[in-house]
Order: sequence, then structure tokens, then C-alpha cells
Amino acid sequence: MLRELREVVRQANCDLVRYGLVTMTFGNVSGIDRERGLVVIKPSGVPYENLSADDLVVVDLEGKVVQGSLHPSSDTPTHLELYRAFAGIGGITHTHSSHATMFAQACRGVPCFGTTHADVFYGEVPVTRPMTEAEVHSDYEINVGKTIVERFEVLDPTAIPAVLVAHHGPFVWGSDASVSVENSVTLEEIARTAIGTLQLAPEAPPIPQYLLDKHFLRKHGKDAYYGQHG
Amino acid sequence: MLRELREVVRQANCDLVRYGLVTMTFGNVSGIDRERGLVVIKPSGVPYENLSADDLVVVDLEGKVVQGSLHPSSDTPTHLELYRAFAGIGGITHTHSSHATMFAQACRGVPCFGTTHADVFYGEVPVTRPMTEAEVHSDYEINVGKTIVERFEVLDPTAIPAVLVAHHGPFVWGSDASVSVENSVTLEEIARTAIGTLQLAPEAPPIPQYLLDKHFLRKHGKDAYYGQHG
Amino acid sequence: MLRELREVVRQANCDLVRYGLVTMTFGNVSGIDRERGLVVIKPSGVPYENLSADDLVVVDLEGKVVQGSLHPSSDTPTHLELYRAFAGIGGITHTHSSHATMFAQACRGVPCFGTTHADVFYGEVPVTRPMTEAEVHSDYEINVGKTIVERFEVLDPTAIPAVLVAHHGPFVWGSDASVSVENSVTLEEIARTAIGTLQLAPEAPPIPQYLLDKHFLRKHGKDAYYGQHG
Amino acid sequence: MLRELREVVRQANCDLVRYGLVTMTFGNVSGIDRERGLVVIKPSGVPYENLSADDLVVVDLEGKVVQGSLHPSSDTPTHLELYRAFAGIGGITHTHSSHATMFAQACRGVPCFGTTHADVFYGEVPVTRPMTEAEVHSDYEINVGKTIVERFEVLDPTAIPAVLVAHHGPFVWGSDASVSVENSVTLEEIARTAIGTLQLAPEAPPIPQYLLDKHFLRKHGKDAYYGQHG
Repeated sequence: MLRELREVVRQANCDLVRYGLVTMTFGNVSGIDRERGLVVIKPSGVPYENLSADDLVVVDLEGKVVQGSLHPSSDTPTHLELYRAFAGIGGITHTHSSHATMFAQACRGVPCFGTTHADVFYGEVPVTRPMTEAEVHSDYEINVGKTIVERFEVLDPTAIPAVLVAHHGPFVWGSDASVSVENSVTLEEIARTAIGTLQLAPEAPPIPQYLLDKHFLRKHGKDAYYGQHG
Repeated sequence: MLRELREVVRQANCDLVRYGLVTMTFGNVSGIDRERGLVVIKPSGVPYENLSADDLVVVDLEGKVVQGSLHPSSDTPTHLELYRAFAGIGGITHTHSSHATMFAQACRGVPCFGTTHADVFYGEVPVTRPMTEAEVHSDYEINVGKTIVERFEVLDPTAIPAVLVAHHGPFVWGSDASVSVENSVTLEEIARTAIGTLQLAPEAPPIPQYLLDKHFLRKHGKDAYYGQHG
Repeated sequence: MLRELREVVRQANCDLVRYGLVTMTFGNVSGIDRERGLVVIKPSGVPYENLSADDLVVVDLEGKVVQGSLHPSSDTPTHLELYRAFAGIGGITHTHSSHATMFAQACRGVPCFGTTHADVFYGEVPVTRPMTEAEVHSDYEINVGKTIVERFEVLDPTAIPAVLVAHHGPFVWGSDASVSVENSVTLEEIARTAIGTLQLAPEAPPIPQYLLDKHFLRKHGKDAYYGQHG
Repeated sequence: MLRELREVVRQANCDLVRYGLVTMTFGNVSGIDRERGLVVIKPSGVPYENLSADDLVVVDLEGKVVQGSLHPSSDTPTHLELYRAFAGIGGITHTHSSHATMFAQACRGVPCFGTTHADVFYGEVPVTRPMTEAEVHSDYEINVGKTIVERFEVLDPTAIPAVLVAHHGPFVWGSDASVSVENSVTLEEIARTAIGTLQLAPEAPPIPQYLLDKHFLRKHGKDAYYGQHG
């Protein structure tokens, strides 16, 4: 079942290692089959190098395990909350990648300081508000998802495909699992570059809106002319 | 003698290189057979790539060499002091890994700024007090161990499996040699991330106690639900 | 057509990955055949590992595609503007390499703090002025080139073979595509070192002019005595 | 001639790449045969990967090329000045390794903040005074050596086997070429760690003299008990 999606999600999980986004087993990728309403996700605490497509767990959008003998990632309820709220996304990556996590731990968003950022994220990558004790105590992983969704009430998740969960780390998404990993790579790089920018210019402003528009829109949307799809 | 333990300890020493935790020969891992009261440890100053299981040295808990023709690591008395004081531990790793050492040299503990930290260490990773001239002059390596034990008088070494020795570097432990290396990898990563967090938010507070509880306890203890053991 | 130049440019594009100068597909190298007035450049958005010499696009100095079935890099008009303005250059590299980009995003040039810098760049690597809304709105990529050329009105592009485009990243050139990549490697390294220098000495002055002269001129110009060409 | 020394020096030059100490061709290692008064050194501007033992150049202590068809490193006069002044050394490494160069460019020595440093360097790694215009204008490379020797008038080069040349980078030495590379690796690591220490504790003092004594002397001198030579 879901043979192709399983393989994409397996590869995407392994790419976390290849791109240096994870230490130990701190990271997971999922992908969704929107037609069937089924999500394929990494099992909890299994090393990436041993991961076979068969190890992946299939759950429905309520979290019921439909296939697989292993426990799904403990972050599964967060993934599901995002799939339910953001209809336009097909894959989600969660990591504790170093520089994005520095911003998350400092409870700061990543400002848009340059065109690398603007090529992928249409403005600051936002940070969620810290969670309350009540939210942590019960249904913690669902509530992580809910604070993300709350943060995007005034933002477009397809234009800004990432968020920093305060005190935790990034959740990143995309049209499929593979794109969500690519966006995670870019997020880590822009977080890294933003820290250096702040070191050189502590009061650096974000780039002008017209430059942000130019770079984001030449790659995304109907008038895009970057790449081979133009 | 101790064939299996030797192999685990040899592998763990080699993993120091694989994980980028050591420069030159600045690091060593040991493991203990609690039943026999024997410790297997790296010989002093031998490169990791040439290390065979037979090169490892077996000592008893008083430091007497029981097997092996090479000198044990000069840090052996520190390892033994920790094995004697912390009954619950099975392996110890000592490195000078870069970011943990930055904190050790600054005589600061690593604050718990996020969930990566909270998943493994139940609170700040503490730093020892600087050693006195008398402590350095005689039985130095034993006294390194004693200052660590002193620091843990009010802490639980199984909940916080690492310490920074002031002006020196980390000692890290775990249920066996391999886990002590994994914990060293995590310590290095959280030290690295904490430095970036402090750069972005010099007054950043540690995470709330309830978030620390949630993350540590979902992975450790009787109600753990992370991984495949749940 | 242009078999040899294609191969040099292909290799140079692949070297961006080898030297760690690019993340994803954020970078491109071109080379020019001055006699024929033709430029070979990377196609837009194609991964480096899959790049064959036949994938490269040949354009004339006005940007007309002369050979190739793929779209040329969206930065092509910038490359062409530089080839038209700087007669002495044979290859151009554009990357978003991390540390050079930190300076570009901070809108600061890279000061000449040492001899590594002076060996390759005869003074500060300059930053362009930010572009106006009008410049971004129409003919953006040409105007990126024009602001670079404007910045070099009082500078010699063969003595300082690199620039930082404000809010964006470096453009670097050289006698051919391969040298432009080598200069990009050096730029990234001196940017990285300059940030550390500023951290240790926020008011550090550039090196004295006589030391800059000594190092640049022992490698470049008629009295050069470095290397095997002396 | 000098077959064995050539091979040691060739290997040491290649190790610069393996240990990440050089970018492009910015680095060189030499070794001396004290009996014959001959020095084997890297040729100028030749890539490390292509270096054969036969490419290395043999010069006498006055700089006369005794064997080899290539030009010796342009830094040869500096190496020779050090061999003439420091009778106890057998090999010299010059690099522009990133973190040591940050200190050199900031004109600051590397303070002894921890035991990694104390294990190899008996106190702060010093920086030379900036060179005068006259010193740069004539016999520059010899004068680089002279300012190093001047800096060591009150220091023991066998106890502190490295120096930072102001505005330039490190020169490091040892009992032979291979040890000089190992000491360069350690210097780079302690420079890196010192920068982080200063970030966490800008006023951090050096370690106490008694701790410096303990660590340096347990590895060096007649009462050493580290390693297998004890």
C-alpha cells in the first residue's frame, strides 16, 4: 500500500542525514496521500541508516495506525494537525537543525536579510508563542501543531513553508516530502547566514518589500521565470 | 577475558572519530563489567584508527592493571572514581569536543534552552568548581573525579549524564560505553546550539520546568512513550 | 561548438559543490570565448550532479540563446553586463556562499585584515549600493550588473576580482571560469576569517598599504615571484 | 638524497589537506636534516594532491637550492631563519588555518584557557609585533623570521612551538615535520575553542599556573607519564 509514497518518504528521511540536518535520531519526515487521507511517517527512534520502506508507518488523519508494526514518530500528532489545517501541503519535515534551532531557542523568527531567503520564504520565518503549562500537560504533540496553526492565522503556509516552534526547533513543509527536506536545507542555511549578518550588523533591517517580491515571485506563482518550468 | 565488553569499548572509542568529537588523541571511552568489578579502557596516547580490542587495558576498580601490556589512559583514575561513586552507570566518555569545551573553559554550565537538551539531560549540564593547587599537585586525576562527584551531591547522575570539568572539558556517561558516546554527541550539539542562542538572546532563560519534565519523561522513566520500547 | 570551454565551465560548476560554496542550486559559473563573443553558462535550476557539458547553454553578449535546449541561469543578464564592462575577465562565478553572503546581507565590504586576502584581492572586497525600487522592477538582473559596474568606476576589476551585491551575495571573476571559482573559495575563506577577526577586535584596522602591496604584487604583475612562473 | 626526509615532508604537506588546515595552496611544511644542514621544503604554488617526493626542493641553510627543479616556497627564507635560530626544532609548518589566522589578524595571542592548550603549549601562543615598512620592503620573508625570533627572546620555542605572525597567520614547529603538523592541528583547535570561550566569558582569565604546569609537564619533560613512553 502506498508503495511510491513510502519510497519518497524513506528517501527524504535518509536525506536528513545526507544534508547534515539531524544528530542521532532527532528528526522525521512524513508525506500524505490526500486522496486516501493517509500519512506515511518515520517510526519513532529508529536510526536512518536502517530504515526500510516497510518500516515506515501508515496512519490516517486521526492518527490511527493503518499499516506497520512499529510505533510512529512521537511527533505524529503534530504532523497530522498541520495536514488537517494546511490543505495545500504534501510533506512535512521536523528537525533540530543547529542554526534554525538557535533561533527557536531564542524565541526569535528568522528575518529576511537576503535573496537566498526571499527565493524560498516570502518574509520572516515566524516563531510560535511559548506553550502554556496546560498545553504541555495534555495532548502536547497536538498542541504543538495547534500553536503553529494559530501562528499562521495571518500568514500563508504555502508562501512561508516553515515555522520555528519556540524552545524546540523547526517544522518545515512543501508540496511533497522531498520538497519539505529541501526547504529545511534552505531554512538551516538562511538561519546560519542570518546569525552572521546580525553579528556584523546588529540593527540590520530586513530587505525591502520590492526585493522580496521580486525574488519570491520570479520563482513562485504564475509569472515565475526561474528554472526550466518558465 | 571480557571479549564482548572489549569490542563495545573499542567501537565506542572509534566512534569518537566518526562523530567528530576528538582532535588527535584527546579522548577516551571506558566500559565496566559490574559483576566482576573490571573496567576496560583505552590505552594512553594510541591513535584510534590503530586500536584493536586487544590493545584495550583491563583494570580493577582500584586501578590495578589486570590485563594488557599498554599503559591505560592517564584519565583512568577519573573514570574509576566515577564508577565507584555512580553505581548506575556502565560507560564513560571523556573528550575535549569543541563547544562543550568552550563552556568548560568559560566555567559555565550549559543551560537547558530547548527540547533537544531536555530529551537527554534533565536540566543544566553543570560545571565543576575550579580545582585547588593542592588538588592538582597530588593525585590530580583522582581529584578530577572527586570534584565531579562533589558537584553531583545534589544532582542525579542518571538524569544528568554529563559534567563539564572547569578549564578542561566534558565527562559523559551512560548505561554502557556506546550510550556514553551518544550522550557526548548530544552534549556537543546542545553546547553548540546554546552558544548561538546566547548570541541571539544574551538573557535567554532556560525552558520552563513543565516543558523540561515533558520531554525528559516522555523518553525516560516508567511512563516513557518515545521510541519502540513504549 | 565551444567543446573545450563547455567542459571547463561544466567542471567549474561542479567544483562549487566540491568546495562547499553552494546549497541546493544557488550558484552558477560561466565562461566566455572573447573571440567569438559567446558565453557558456549553467542552465537555470538544474542540479550540479546531473550537469553534462551538453546541458550548458551558449548565449551571445546580448543574451540571445545560440545553442542549447534549456533556459540559461536567470542570472545570465548580470554575467553578460560584467563581460561587456570588464574586458579583462574570462569567467564569472555567482554563489550565495555563507560568509560572503553574511557581509552582503549586512551591506558591508570585506576589509583586508591579512595576507590571505592581500594575496588575491588588492584591497577591500566592496559591496554595491542597495538597488532602488525602479531598478528592481524592470530589467532586474541587468541592473544588478549595472550597480556592480558602477561600484567599480573607481576600482580595477582585475585587481579586485569580486564584489558583494547588497542583500544578495558575491559575484566573483577571473581569467577563466576555473580561476573565478578559486577566487570564490578564497573570498569565502577571507570573509569567514574577517568575521572572527571582528569578533576578537571589533575596531581592527585593515593591514598597512605597504603589506598589501607586498603580498599582492609578489603574486601578481610583472615582478611576481610566487609560484613556478617567476 | 634525503629519501626518508623527503617522504616525511611530502606526507606532512598532504596532511595539511587531510586535517583541513589549508585552502587552495596557502600552506607549506619543511623538515631539516641537522647533520647535513639541509632543508626539504614544498615547492611554491604546487597543489598538494600532485606533490611527489621528487617535487620537493632541497636547500641549504643559506637558501641555496641544492636539489630540485622547482622554485621552493616563497616562505623558505622564514623557515630557514627559524631553523638557524631555534636549534631544537626539526620541522616547520606554515598555514593560514582559519581560527589561528583570526587571532593573527586581530593581533592577539591565543590565551591558555584550558588543558587542551596546556597539553601542547606551555602558555599563551604569542603574536609578533607588526612589521615596519622598511622590514616589508626589503628581505620581507627573512624579516618575518626575524620578528618571530625577536618575539621568542624571552620564550622557549620548544615549550611553545608556535607563533602567530601579525596580519598573517601561524608558523608552528616540532621535533620533525610530522609533529609540526600535529601541533598545527592543535593550535587551530585551541584557537577555535578560545574564540568560543571569549564569546561566553569575555573576561575569562587564563588557567592557573599550577594547572598549566601539571598538564604540560605530565606530557613533556623527564617526569612525563602520558602515552606509552612513561
